[in-house]
Amino acid sequence: MSTRLGELVERLGGQLMGEPNTEVLGIAPLDSADASHITFLSNPKLRAQVAQTRAAAVILTAADSAVIGTAYKGARIIAANPYAYFARAAQLFADRHAIAQQPGIHSSAVIDPSALIADSACIGSHVTIEADAVIDEGCVIDSGCFIGRGAKVGAATHFFARVTFHAGCEIGRSGIVHSGAVIGADGFGFANEDGAWIKIPQTGRVVIGNDVEIGANTTIDRGALADTVIEDGVKLDNQIQIAHNCHIGAHTAMAGCVGVAGSAKIGKYCTFGGAAMVLGHLTIVDHVHISSASMVSRSILEPGRYTGFYPLAKNADWEKSAAIVRNLTSMREKIRELEKALKLINEKNNEQP
Amino acid sequence: MSTRLGELVERLGGQLMGEPNTEVLGIAPLDSADASHITFLSNPKLRAQVAQTRAAAVILTAADSAVIGTAYKGARIIAANPYAYFARAAQLFADRHAIAQQPGIHSSAVIDPSALIADSACIGSHVTIEADAVIDEGCVIDSGCFIGRGAKVGAATHFFARVTFHAGCEIGRSGIVHSGAVIGADGFGFANEDGAWIKIPQTGRVVIGNDVEIGANTTIDRGALADTVIEDGVKLDNQIQIAHNCHIGAHTAMAGCVGVAGSAKIGKYCTFGGAAMVLGHLTIVDHVHISSASMVSRSILEPGRYTGFYPLAKNADWEKSAAIVRNLTSMREKIRELEKALKLINEKNNEQP
Amino acid sequence: MSTRLGELVERLGGQLMGEPNTEVLGIAPLDSADASHITFLSNPKLRAQVAQTRAAAVILTAADSAVIGTAYKGARIIAANPYAYFARAAQLFADRHAIAQQPGIHSSAVIDPSALIADSACIGSHVTIEADAVIDEGCVIDSGCFIGRGAKVGAATHFFARVTFHAGCEIGRSGIVHSGAVIGADGFGFANEDGAWIKIPQTGRVVIGNDVEIGANTTIDRGALADTVIEDGVKLDNQIQIAHNCHIGAHTAMAGCVGVAGSAKIGKYCTFGGAAMVLGHLTIVDHVHISSASMVSRSILEPGRYTGFYPLAKNADWEKSAAIVRNLTSMREKIRELEKALKLINEKNNEQP
Repeated sequence: MSTRLGELVERLGGQLMGEPNTEVLGIAPLDSADASHITFLSNPKLRAQVAQTRAAAVILTAADSAVIGTAYKGARIIAANPYAYFARAAQLFADRHAIAQQPGIHSSAVIDPSALIADSACIGSHVTIEADAVIDEGCVIDSGCFIGRGAKVGAATHFFARVTFHAGCEIGRSGIVHSGAVIGADGFGFANEDGAWIKIPQTGRVVIGNDVEIGANTTIDRGALADTVIEDGVKLDNQIQIAHNCHIGAHTAMAGCVGVAGSAKIGKYCTFGGAAMVLGHLTIVDHVHISSASMVSRSILEPGRYTGFYPLAKNADWEKSAAIVRNLTSMREKIRELEKALKLINEKNNEQP
Repeated sequence: MSTRLGELVERLGGQLMGEPNTEVLGIAPLDSADASHITFLSNPKLRAQVAQTRAAAVILTAADSAVIGTAYKGARIIAANPYAYFARAAQLFADRHAIAQQPGIHSSAVIDPSALIADSACIGSHVTIEADAVIDEGCVIDSGCFIGRGAKVGAATHFFARVTFHAGCEIGRSGIVHSGAVIGADGFGFANEDGAWIKIPQTGRVVIGNDVEIGANTTIDRGALADTVIEDGVKLDNQIQIAHNCHIGAHTAMAGCVGVAGSAKIGKYCTFGGAAMVLGHLTIVDHVHISSASMVSRSILEPGRYTGFYPLAKNADWEKSAAIVRNLTSMREKIRELEKALKLINEKNNEQP
Repeated sequence: MSTRLGELVERLGGQLMGEPNTEVLGIAPLDSADASHITFLSNPKLRAQVAQTRAAAVILTAADSAVIGTAYKGARIIAANPYAYFARAAQLFADRHAIAQQPGIHSSAVIDPSALIADSACIGSHVTIEADAVIDEGCVIDSGCFIGRGAKVGAATHFFARVTFHAGCEIGRSGIVHSGAVIGADGFGFANEDGAWIKIPQTGRVVIGNDVEIGANTTIDRGALADTVIEDGVKLDNQIQIAHNCHIGAHTAMAGCVGVAGSAKIGKYCTFGGAAMVLGHLTIVDHVHISSASMVSRSILEPGRYTGFYPLAKNADWEKSAAIVRNLTSMREKIRELEKALKLINEKNNEQP
């Protein structure tokens, strides 16, 4: 299942400088590619590697191509964004190797008669789909998934094995939800009465846009009264927790283990490093980037990168610095005393004739 | 399925000031409620909104009612704890909208003949219940749950889809366990021998009290020799990890992503913010409140609120402060030198005639 | 199902000082053991408890035995590593109490005809095994597991209920994977184009060695082009996230909630405390120990213990110290000014006759 370079450019755009009939089988990094691969240059630090690559062709920018000049003799595909071009080319190769699933419903699946399952959908073994759920054209619902009453899954969306998608929740088209994800569990809402907790029913939904990817074992809770909303193009990695009534703006991406507390409103085009945490009822504007392991404890109203984690050190050094951190107020006090004492000396000195 | 205000007060208590025959359909916040809703005032900051609400009735304290006076013309329900009243009223409305599940065992469920399943229990599709397990009256065990050998589930407890409840574990009555939770996996116990790890069998159980709620994808490990214990009324959010042999006191609540290491003993009426972490073999007394993203590294023997996370800053500012944190010992050294130098100067000055 | 002390020593080694025909039923800690138990001394602080124990025998080192002398009258098993001996003895007792599972495939399991299932394997209810998967001798695959196309499970490996093991992934012999774990979900890889994210297909595998244990709801992503690799003897606790293309060296152990970002290379014999985080593309050499809740933001090239978390304090104290941390640069500035001022004074003083 090889692909001609010419065909690649016909489908994905870019300008081919080289023989269009060269056949390639896949994509590999600059240093490990051989004549059956194409490769790509997206990191300028790797520019020197291009001359040595054995790949059949390199995807790169016109600017990098000019800098490299004749140091590299092979074929080139000129693209404005070589990394995005690589991603699309890789999708194309992956599609060629994918094993087509046959539409239909596995005999072990339990489907309520009132559920609407498109003819082109694939429903795997041990799946349960409850009353009034809607599974649109081209969906793939893998083994062991659970889809609750009245939930809606948009066209060409893929649930990997063992996804839980609770009653009333919705996801748009071309989504991917990975194994173990739980969408639409109850939000964590209780009223306290004399120390005991009284459950507040969670009657909102989770409403997810198009082109959203949700990682393995990630959880997104349904809203208390209103809905939890995930806009188009959001990408969530594994083990993320999104609490009830959060709103996550389009094209925001979160790495693994991020937690977002209830009713946080996060803008578009934001990124969150792994294990970043966001308190509830905050607002984060568009284009905010939170570093890994950082705790967002107040609203962020200005775009930019924000960080807050304790720097790692050898344990003995950390013990010393942590002891001082615990006593920073006394250090500040000492500095104030020094300032006062110095002022006194200066005054005395100036009094002297 | 509307409810008369009079009926609400008959069932939930409180004093109605207004027309008992007014019918309402549900509950909404002060600012979005209309004439089909009741609403509530629990946050004094929102007191001014009461005059403007379009709700059929407001739940509030006698004190707030007096302060608001005639600025609000509609019906009132006077309650000592309006937020708890709201929670109970919301439960009542939710129950009215709930779709009753028929008792019985789905044909695709696999139930060992020795398991005791109450007639009033509902067992969903693709459930497995192993030998000698006991499922009490009114339990709802949704699709895809696994209940191990000899496990016991108390009356009216609800397992959402795809809960794993391992052999020998027990949960009391009126519990809720959300999808993806794993109760009773092996604790993480190994002996080290020349660098390699030898597994210590985990033969204790997880024993859970009444009225406990456990969030989606939360894990609670079985004890090594003794049991892991979760007392009555504990509320655990999603993605929480409770290690073997922990003991969590009644009515303690933990927000998402909290982790508790082995053999920690946590008191009653505690709260833990999201992603708080607790080291093993610690004791935390009753009424301790840990802030989000804080690390508890030693026992806490005095009630109160405790916090420990690095404050978030613009990345450039964090880089500067983190560099100084790394070198706090040298800063302290400088201050000591300044103190010495100053002392010297003062001595010299005093020597001068 | 009691065991003679003599039999224990025949099977596990060590030197018995006492009556070999004494029968014991299990293992218990020093303070709770009775005459039906053996116990062990691995923590020197507990040495004084040995004299009081009611256990049938104590496992301890020759050195501790000498120190204790005649203060303890009961039987002793002398072992070089009493804690490892305890683990092995506990395994032996646990095996005696285990209920043997019958080999075979449950009638509700869905097995592709091309999958190779060893005759001695046990396949539970509602399991799905896809085409060309290989399940080796003595495997136990509990209820609700999913094993993807072409995946390989080595001999005597045990998947607890509801494990997801995706296409092409491999695990060696004598492994244990706990419920809810997801092995081989797509890594989190996207190219950004004008703010939107383009998926990079994840075509690598997860390749896991022998004697590996993986905790409940832990996730290990498949590699992007190359594989994610977990070497022999690695032990991962619950709720851990291992991103694509990580490489974890043999016998490294990680406690719950740890996160490792993509392409991190971690050495052998390392340990990670709970909720430790590792950034991507780092190298950590062998024998590195990371404390709980610590963030590894750069490579660690020297063995040792490393820590980095903000020390917990009463909330009011934390607020003060955090405010100073935010302004550490101004504190440093003040110290510099003090140094300058002091220098000036000293110069002035020295100028004076």
